[in-house]
Amino acid sequence: VINLRKEEDFSEWYNEIVELAGITDKRYPVKGMNVWTPYGWKAMLLIDAVVRREFNRRGNSEVCFPLFIPEDQFSKEKEHVKGFDEQVYWVTHAGRNELDIRLVVRPTSETAMYPIFSLWVRSHADLPLKIYQIVNVFRYETKQTRALMRMREIHFIEGHTCHASFEDAERQISEDLQMMKAIAQALCIPYSIHRRPEWDKFPGAYYSLGIDTIMPDGRTLQIGTIHQYRTNFSVPYNIGYENEEGRREYVHQTTYGMSERLLGALISIHGDERGLIFPPEVAPIQAIIVIIAGGDDHGLAGYLSEVREVMTAAGIRFEVDDRDIRPGNKYYEWERKGVPLRLEIGQREMREREITLCRRDTGKRIAVRFEALAGTLVEMFDGIAQNLHDRASRFHGSMIHIVAGPEHLTTGVNRMWWCGEEKCGIRIEEISGASVLGTQEDSSTDGEGKCTICGRTTTLMVSVARSM
Amino acid sequence: VINLRKEEDFSEWYNEIVELAGITDKRYPVKGMNVWTPYGWKAMLLIDAVVRREFNRRGNSEVCFPLFIPEDQFSKEKEHVKGFDEQVYWVTHAGRNELDIRLVVRPTSETAMYPIFSLWVRSHADLPLKIYQIVNVFRYETKQTRALMRMREIHFIEGHTCHASFEDAERQISEDLQMMKAIAQALCIPYSIHRRPEWDKFPGAYYSLGIDTIMPDGRTLQIGTIHQYRTNFSVPYNIGYENEEGRREYVHQTTYGMSERLLGALISIHGDERGLIFPPEVAPIQAIIVIIAGGDDHGLAGYLSEVREVMTAAGIRFEVDDRDIRPGNKYYEWERKGVPLRLEIGQREMREREITLCRRDTGKRIAVRFEALAGTLVEMFDGIAQNLHDRASRFHGSMIHIVAGPEHLTTGVNRMWWCGEEKCGIRIEEISGASVLGTQEDSSTDGEGKCTICGRTTTLMVSVARSM
Repeated sequence: VINLRKEEDFSEWYNEIVELAGITDKRYPVKGMNVWTPYGWKAMLLIDAVVRREFNRRGNSEVCFPLFIPEDQFSKEKEHVKGFDEQVYWVTHAGRNELDIRLVVRPTSETAMYPIFSLWVRSHADLPLKIYQIVNVFRYETKQTRALMRMREIHFIEGHTCHASFEDAERQISEDLQMMKAIAQALCIPYSIHRRPEWDKFPGAYYSLGIDTIMPDGRTLQIGTIHQYRTNFSVPYNIGYENEEGRREYVHQTTYGMSERLLGALISIHGDERGLIFPPEVAPIQAIIVIIAGGDDHGLAGYLSEVREVMTAAGIRFEVDDRDIRPGNKYYEWERKGVPLRLEIGQREMREREITLCRRDTGKRIAVRFEALAGTLVEMFDGIAQNLHDRASRFHGSMIHIVAGPEHLTTGVNRMWWCGEEKCGIRIEEISGASVLGTQEDSSTDGEGKCTICGRTTTLMVSVARSM
Repeated sequence: VINLRKEEDFSEWYNEIVELAGITDKRYPVKGMNVWTPYGWKAMLLIDAVVRREFNRRGNSEVCFPLFIPEDQFSKEKEHVKGFDEQVYWVTHAGRNELDIRLVVRPTSETAMYPIFSLWVRSHADLPLKIYQIVNVFRYETKQTRALMRMREIHFIEGHTCHASFEDAERQISEDLQMMKAIAQALCIPYSIHRRPEWDKFPGAYYSLGIDTIMPDGRTLQIGTIHQYRTNFSVPYNIGYENEEGRREYVHQTTYGMSERLLGALISIHGDERGLIFPPEVAPIQAIIVIIAGGDDHGLAGYLSEVREVMTAAGIRFEVDDRDIRPGNKYYEWERKGVPLRLEIGQREMREREITLCRRDTGKRIAVRFEALAGTLVEMFDGIAQNLHDRASRFHGSMIHIVAGPEHLTTGVNRMWWCGEEKCGIRIEEISGASVLGTQEDSSTDGEGKCTICGRTTTLMVSVARSM
């Protein structure tokens, strides 16, 4: 058992859990680049599968663009370059030769994709163009790195769209928010949506929405971003189309980004002092069958194979632990790894034709009749997901506070009146020592108040938080 | 229609087909790095899914190792470095800093993985270690590049195993060959297995097996490699274990490599002058429903939705083409993209409650009763796969010749007597102007003959071919 409670020392708890559960191995000799171990990678692939399903369902097509971006192509949109300049890795040599044109290792793929988009989009019939890719990106992060949350090699999901008009691009953003909802639902992760302030939007964006969840220590973690680019990239990259009147127009673009932070958030939000807890939909192992060896076998193998058959037919990802060690040790190990459901089978279960089930999230044990197993499993998985979701939502809600001003900063998200001016926003950050997340998009503000800095009357509230 | 026959000018036919079918886009401005378009990437992901299924089924676990390898770690196995030295991309800068230790962009992952394996493997209980990953690798290729066949960014599948003994590693190689068989089966690709000659084995390997298929122009294409490393890497990377007697031993290692060439081979082998032909198992679109518009609808929409329902229930990947263009143009387009089966639905079909089916591989059209649709589809897909397989195997067999010596080289694979000496092998290459593939593993040689160079009596035959 882990001798740490996540509420007390979240950072240490998190680092220990990621290691003990075998998610990534941090002993790789390049800072900020970890090895995905089989269990962790399986979880990430299951999350990717949810993401793919939701993208595909909405008519987005998966592609894969090259990793390297020539320097001249990378530099076309000025704000974007400025934002990433200090964060990129440069390939300068190949074999024994120095390259004529240096290559950027993609930190994100706008500048890899957009010159090609200008070839793909010719007329209004080619719009909307909706593509996405799931690739690793590379950012020379200078802050302290943390597994799945702040790495230099990042498992990344990026959606890119082109539209005939600003309004079409806005509708795309609504669709992206629907998609975020579906993905977060599968992971049982609650979140708030903030429109980032001008000074913190994505380099090159017209505006940026941040999807923020809250860690056990009250700090926020951005698990997704959606950007409206308007024509900021399509002009320098010359992505245009002929409209129905035969006039050339620039496309309006959006992007949608998510990453391995989805897994990092899931671990942080659902885990406890015993280890991880996976929501069933993305659990690498949904159920572990633990054999309680009771001396001789007495036909236990036969009963086990009946149980296996039911599990396989129900399409459940399960494993059998028949190692010759104490059951308690097995329990600890699978709890640590976050397997949502444990099945115990021993002489007693076989005799009674029952199975003992134990839920990871509540620890509750019940016995079910063999005949009722398949149905009970489905119900239990639903129940576990619902409970994780409720528990997380309660916590999330409890961490959002309305405060009088930046000097009253407390843990979690602090909402306060704000006139909307950058000057006052920056002042809020200075006084609070925290970040302005922006104005909350998914929560309306009742009435009006006075800006906590300049005192002007306003209907806006801004969210302020310490972020990961 | 493409005005090229693959038998006459394979290279041009291939380049045109890849482009017209929309597999990859070669207009990306870095040489040897193409963009995977939605259709091509879908095909690649379906092939990856087959690969994953076969790896997982045999107890291999998927992982993901970092892209960058520090120079010192890359250089530990001398032969390996020598083999890749001129082919690697170097990251030398990050942000505005020059890196203390230069980073190699992985050309293959031995040197990324093995230092970590030395941490993962401690005792005989940790063996065998069987892992694989599907990632892109980077090789600064100096020969002319070709889509999916010789690229500088390569979609790559690499299996790595550690075993307690040489014999265990040999058994792994037998298992890998079974896996190759299952994967090739799904793609309907025939192949020969050659034990590569000493002078052409993988850098660092004890021996290498090459999986060779034959292109329409008679040149061979290596679509897979399996390497026995013995302890060549485990000694420099210090991967050892404590055996049951408590003595420390080095592990024996194998690797298994495949790539996007699987897709390149599939395109080359099955395509024809109309375009691609996908084996149903990996076809991005398995069936296209073409609506034959006959003036008014007269309830066609209703009939279509009945057909869709049957297709969905049968789990078939299909699309509906209801564009208002001439049916002939639709046919050409889907033929070009290699969709294995076309369904035609018009007024006549609706009236008779039939569907007209047309096979891409044979061009045969038949009408089936609506009630028989689901069953017929399954049968037809099996029939198409069988036909593609038979056709390809006949061609493959017809391209393997026994010849008297290197001066009699003909198209395809030329087998000739060889004493086994490197000196004679090199001479064979010089005289023939072709490559020695090695001795065929999956075909025994009857009797004995005289080495075509030195005249010594031998039971070995060597395969010689021009390779891609």
